Amino acid sequence: MADTRHITLPKGFRATGVKAGIKPSGREDVALLAAEADCSAAVVLTSNQVFGAPIAWARRILPRGRGKLRAFVINSGCSNVCTGPAGLRDAEEMAARTARRLVCDARKVLVASTGVIGHRLPMDKVRAGIDAAAEKLSTRHDGDFLRAIMTTDLREKSAVVVSKLGRTKFTVAGTVKGSGMIAPSLATMIAPITTDAAVSPALLHKALKDVAGRTFNAVTVDSDQSTSDTVAVLASGAAGNASIRPGSKEYRKFLAVLEEVCGALAYQLAADGEGATRVIRIAVTGARGEADARAAAMSVANSPLVKTAVHGSDPNWGRIVMALGKSAAKVEPDKLKVRIGRTLVFSAGRGRKFDEKTVSTYLSGKEVDIACDLGLGEGAFAALTCDLSREYIAINADYTT
Amino acid sequence: MADTRHITLPKGFRATGVKAGIKPSGREDVALLAAEADCSAAVVLTSNQVFGAPIAWARRILPRGRGKLRAFVINSGCSNVCTGPAGLRDAEEMAARTARRLVCDARKVLVASTGVIGHRLPMDKVRAGIDAAAEKLSTRHDGDFLRAIMTTDLREKSAVVVSKLGRTKFTVAGTVKGSGMIAPSLATMIAPITTDAAVSPALLHKALKDVAGRTFNAVTVDSDQSTSDTVAVLASGAAGNASIRPGSKEYRKFLAVLEEVCGALAYQLAADGEGATRVIRIAVTGARGEADARAAAMSVANSPLVKTAVHGSDPNWGRIVMALGKSAAKVEPDKLKVRIGRTLVFSAGRGRKFDEKTVSTYLSGKEVDIACDLGLGEGAFAALTCDLSREYIAINADYTT
Repeated sequence: MADTRHITLPKGFRATGVKAGIKPSGREDVALLAAEADCSAAVVLTSNQVFGAPIAWARRILPRGRGKLRAFVINSGCSNVCTGPAGLRDAEEMAARTARRLVCDARKVLVASTGVIGHRLPMDKVRAGIDAAAEKLSTRHDGDFLRAIMTTDLREKSAVVVSKLGRTKFTVAGTVKGSGMIAPSLATMIAPITTDAAVSPALLHKALKDVAGRTFNAVTVDSDQSTSDTVAVLASGAAGNASIRPGSKEYRKFLAVLEEVCGALAYQLAADGEGATRVIRIAVTGARGEADARAAAMSVANSPLVKTAVHGSDPNWGRIVMALGKSAAKVEPDKLKVRIGRTLVFSAGRGRKFDEKTVSTYLSGKEVDIACDLGLGEGAFAALTCDLSREYIAINADYTT
Repeated sequence: MADTRHITLPKGFRATGVKAGIKPSGREDVALLAAEADCSAAVVLTSNQVFGAPIAWARRILPRGRGKLRAFVINSGCSNVCTGPAGLRDAEEMAARTARRLVCDARKVLVASTGVIGHRLPMDKVRAGIDAAAEKLSTRHDGDFLRAIMTTDLREKSAVVVSKLGRTKFTVAGTVKGSGMIAPSLATMIAPITTDAAVSPALLHKALKDVAGRTFNAVTVDSDQSTSDTVAVLASGAAGNASIRPGSKEYRKFLAVLEEVCGALAYQLAADGEGATRVIRIAVTGARGEADARAAAMSVANSPLVKTAVHGSDPNWGRIVMALGKSAAKVEPDKLKVRIGRTLVFSAGRGRKFDEKTVSTYLSGKEVDIACDLGLGEGAFAALTCDLSREYIAINADYTT
């Protein structure tokens, strides 16, 4: 069966994933993405004060979140977090071994690890995995690559957009893993993204930071934040466009395409949230400012009572209003309007009469839109989350350390 | 069957609860506590920006959270939140009707309502309930009183401490309802507390605020915060002590007894958290200050991943460390020590070797202590929560609006 192509669709990249025996399941667990030449690169990393050795390595080789990269090596099954100086040496060795196989500088190899916290990597398996992956690099193993970065994910998540800069065709492609411990900023999320557009590291980093705020950082599955989050964009320049200039029409085009890819990945993260049966989009408008809009939207998105109500198809707008009211955002009930789908359920300080059956049926769909107009200003922000189900508990109570 | 006495054990109070038909279950739903004379009174109310009509009434009659009260009338089954000006009139009528029956000023009657948000009170039933309750006031119906304030609570929660001020015996007794939407500050929590100690409204309020910060405000079930929270202490003065003076030995004694009662009620709230099978106490020490200690403890207490791990008896300290690291508190992994029960599971930046079976067995107990020493200062705070189970989802996905 041929896998869907994604991460190697932009020109200049090869990838693969191999089974190195790190995951008890025996599935793919070492992923390697390699460029034909050094790429412009930008990363956004977890802000958790407890972070894994690969994050420390990334900060060393890309001190301001940008620079040049040749490859990105990732293992799943063990996160290499809280493993002390020995863990950092393991991360360095992953980079060095990959670099030797690809004949490049170790400082051009980004590393990520995902899985259980607090265990040393089984380095024998990792080494063998890297060697095998380096042999197998191709443009026909995108599926293996993606499966090798997954942990509790149920779905393979990827997105590709092809567009033009002037007359030059370019592609942005992304994959992502993550389904629990997902909250701003970022999550147990690893998102390798490739493009063949030519763009400087600094401008690529600006674009990624801008876009991540509205996409990856707008998703919350369970309000928990991982120690290993890594979003990385590698730009090969192989499309042949003139390098994108700041503030240009081409920059705006590139930004829009990058946002489309990251937005699609963020949506898939919410849809594949642990135990999720619905995606919930909370759009806040009319806030005093964007910070208020974000605080209000995230408070609703993180409320277990809202998430369980949606799971139960219960049009319980009281919980939405409660979550807005407890947030750091200024809220005046008299000015607030809340809609579930198209139905106005709350305005002027109280619930409206509405057909509960209609709204309950709407809440049973795969996508639920909750719109909250605070009526106080121009601030707007949309958050994405999923419902909270028994399955979330099952997954997380039984996940073994 | 004789009920346990509690709320009327301090001298000068009578109470009862009646079935007024507000709850679909047909159980007790109107509760009335009445004092023989005006009492010193202090309240702590929700800080949610969306609040119920009874909260607005409480703020009007006790503008700075203190004053004089004769009675406290409470209904369950309907929260009278988001009900507009008509809802406020309903709350006023509850006070006025109670006052007429007890022959006192309406502004001496505190009101609380708990249950679903957004529905008008069925005032015919409420009126009949108040009338019936006023007839039935006694010192033998404490159980009916307590059952009449409960909603999804599974257990009857109360605490009584008898002590002495000099040679004068005094009693503090409290009851509380609440099991979901419980988070600082407060929760869907209504806690009527009585004492026969003589103390001024101002000093009583100072004591209550002080104690609530370490007890009720240290409990979180699901991070959600209710629109109706009310903790109220009525002090009859019937014990006969000389009125307690600020800063005195008697004040410290009174404070300690009040804290013992509130602490016991807070513990029972956590134990009766929706779907709870264990109480989890997170004690943070060594923080840079108390604000940091609170932030760190609450981040762990609110983490669904920590709560599900405990539910699964999984010694997954990585999730504890993750929750500390994402908090607003300063955390340095190298200085951090984490204990589960007596077992040191994390220090010097990494996991310790420990017997997983022993810790897993410990986590299966009814009480779980997690101690986190941040190693950075003198700040300390202890939070209480419960595990997160499938039953929480069942309760909240199926609760009907």
